[in-house]
Amino acid sequence: MSKSLLHLQCPLPKFDFDIITLAHGSGGLLTNKLLESGVFDLLKNDELDKHHDGAILELNGKVAFSTDSFVISPVFFPGGDIGELAVNGTVNDVAMCGAIPKYLSLSFILEEGLPMKEFWEILVSIKYATEKAGVRIVTGDTKVVDKGKGDKIFINTTGIGEMHPQADIALTRVKVGDKIIVSDSIATHGISILSVRQGLEFETTIESDTRNLNDMTLKLLDAFGTQIHLFRDPTRGGVAATLNEIARDAHLGIELNDTHIPVLSQVKAACEILGLDPLYTANEGVFMAIVAPEIAEGVVEILHTFDEAKHAAIIGEVVAEHNGQVLISNAMGGKRVVHMPVGEQLPRIC
Amino acid sequence: MSKSLLHLQCPLPKFDFDIITLAHGSGGLLTNKLLESGVFDLLKNDELDKHHDGAILELNGKVAFSTDSFVISPVFFPGGDIGELAVNGTVNDVAMCGAIPKYLSLSFILEEGLPMKEFWEILVSIKYATEKAGVRIVTGDTKVVDKGKGDKIFINTTGIGEMHPQADIALTRVKVGDKIIVSDSIATHGISILSVRQGLEFETTIESDTRNLNDMTLKLLDAFGTQIHLFRDPTRGGVAATLNEIARDAHLGIELNDTHIPVLSQVKAACEILGLDPLYTANEGVFMAIVAPEIAEGVVEILHTFDEAKHAAIIGEVVAEHNGQVLISNAMGGKRVVHMPVGEQLPRIC
Repeated sequence: MSKSLLHLQCPLPKFDFDIITLAHGSGGLLTNKLLESGVFDLLKNDELDKHHDGAILELNGKVAFSTDSFVISPVFFPGGDIGELAVNGTVNDVAMCGAIPKYLSLSFILEEGLPMKEFWEILVSIKYATEKAGVRIVTGDTKVVDKGKGDKIFINTTGIGEMHPQADIALTRVKVGDKIIVSDSIATHGISILSVRQGLEFETTIESDTRNLNDMTLKLLDAFGTQIHLFRDPTRGGVAATLNEIARDAHLGIELNDTHIPVLSQVKAACEILGLDPLYTANEGVFMAIVAPEIAEGVVEILHTFDEAKHAAIIGEVVAEHNGQVLISNAMGGKRVVHMPVGEQLPRIC
Repeated sequence: MSKSLLHLQCPLPKFDFDIITLAHGSGGLLTNKLLESGVFDLLKNDELDKHHDGAILELNGKVAFSTDSFVISPVFFPGGDIGELAVNGTVNDVAMCGAIPKYLSLSFILEEGLPMKEFWEILVSIKYATEKAGVRIVTGDTKVVDKGKGDKIFINTTGIGEMHPQADIALTRVKVGDKIIVSDSIATHGISILSVRQGLEFETTIESDTRNLNDMTLKLLDAFGTQIHLFRDPTRGGVAATLNEIARDAHLGIELNDTHIPVLSQVKAACEILGLDPLYTANEGVFMAIVAPEIAEGVVEILHTFDEAKHAAIIGEVVAEHNGQVLISNAMGGKRVVHMPVGEQLPRIC
């Protein structure tokens, strides 16, 4: 179902208040009113309906467990909002473990004065994102802080997934000769957020790439199992931070080929204008796979069957030299070191 | 180990920065520096050491899953701080499901400018609380928001616990005739926070009752299994909100005996001065058990073996009359309705 269709089906319920107040976080009648007058109905499922302090789940075997708090500003941006991002972010972290995301917890920190209309829009996005990713919200929490002590809405999601039976994803499995693949063009999310923040306008709107990645990782694990050595999503700090961490922690070198790294032309143009490096710019709907060389082409082929991985490409490989460092070669054959970023080019990007 | 001893063993590491900056939430070098220069060492365990996006856990059977965000103000208060509260709060929510808490995720939203000294003190409290409760922090996240967009520190913890094999805790199991037990004197946490906020001084400091409750619930489940019908911790909204929810959702009535409800004399005095009702005041280290009448005395006996449940008492029972309502009788035999609180007497109490 498209998000806009879902929106039509979920009109704003008749709340008898227009904004969030401190009392909505009290645990009393107003908290109940907030939840019962639409929120529970929207997110409805068997576990959530029990209204206990926690959910009871049946889990067997190896389970992946991951958490993220989302503080992005602005909360609405081209291509998504904080609600969709909060679901996808944790779904993707669980998927990066080689697991199939199943359950999420959902915890809000709302700022007093948040319009109910905005809260509802975010809830509808959450609903949409959970349906698309095939996960269920089974337990939650709502807190409200005084005006000026928060920023509209912060969301924490924590996810549980069942390990794919053929997955063996670990830093220790990364080997010399492994190929490094990105699932799609990079830097789109970061540039999208920056453009709204700065009020920049390009010929076409650059939309955030926020999306769930578990459908792709599942298909890859089904096809190649243990020949996939590592998944990582290069969010904050971008591809540069993620690969530097891998090189450092795996005690290996990484070499990238500049000309193979997919970047949308309008994103590249924006980066040039703004003096940003796409390698350091945050992503949301992109992951990297480090795989045995013999399956690299096959991985890219499968990724290309997905609309949102049309630009998947092999961008480099793992090498024995320059332990702990990431190098990049350009079209002329020159090489430079890609350093670990010190800070983020953009704070509050997710 | 006492908290002060642990504090001596965990002196503030030599961070080369005194305060949290936005770059500490960037995912780059400074985030790494923050985590590697003491945080990971302090919270050390096998799962956390893998530094992946998530933790891989082995779980079999029924599992309880619960989340809470903590936004208490002030973050340090008599008897505890937000770190200890964040661990205990989620440990207790998992315990209330009839489960044995095992793993926690830990997610920070820090406000730019938070002194490292305060952050460290909170981390040490977290460590202390996890050791006391017997749980491990296996995955986490750190975000930083601009000064004025948060309030020092917000913490989300999400917990996983294994169901006690003899537990069958559910609202549907509450029956007419069941006894209602509180594990200790009520309203202490709320009054403690209020007294610091208002700068009130009483003859003795009223300390928050924040503590883990899983040791008590485990012992009760070991002893009485399915004869325990429900556990609930009356946090926000106090005993009144929790019992109103139970009465409403179980479609039964509840009758309390005013004279049996334990309240510390200094808390009672403070409530009188401040015009607060202990029934509506938040608790942290107190739970309620609704149990078969024949085991009620035995439950209280076991609770009395714990230092922090010395005032455990049977305070009421479940009745067939006045469906959905909570009534309280006083020493004179008069009865009044205990309504669901509309808002919280004190915002940001947890």
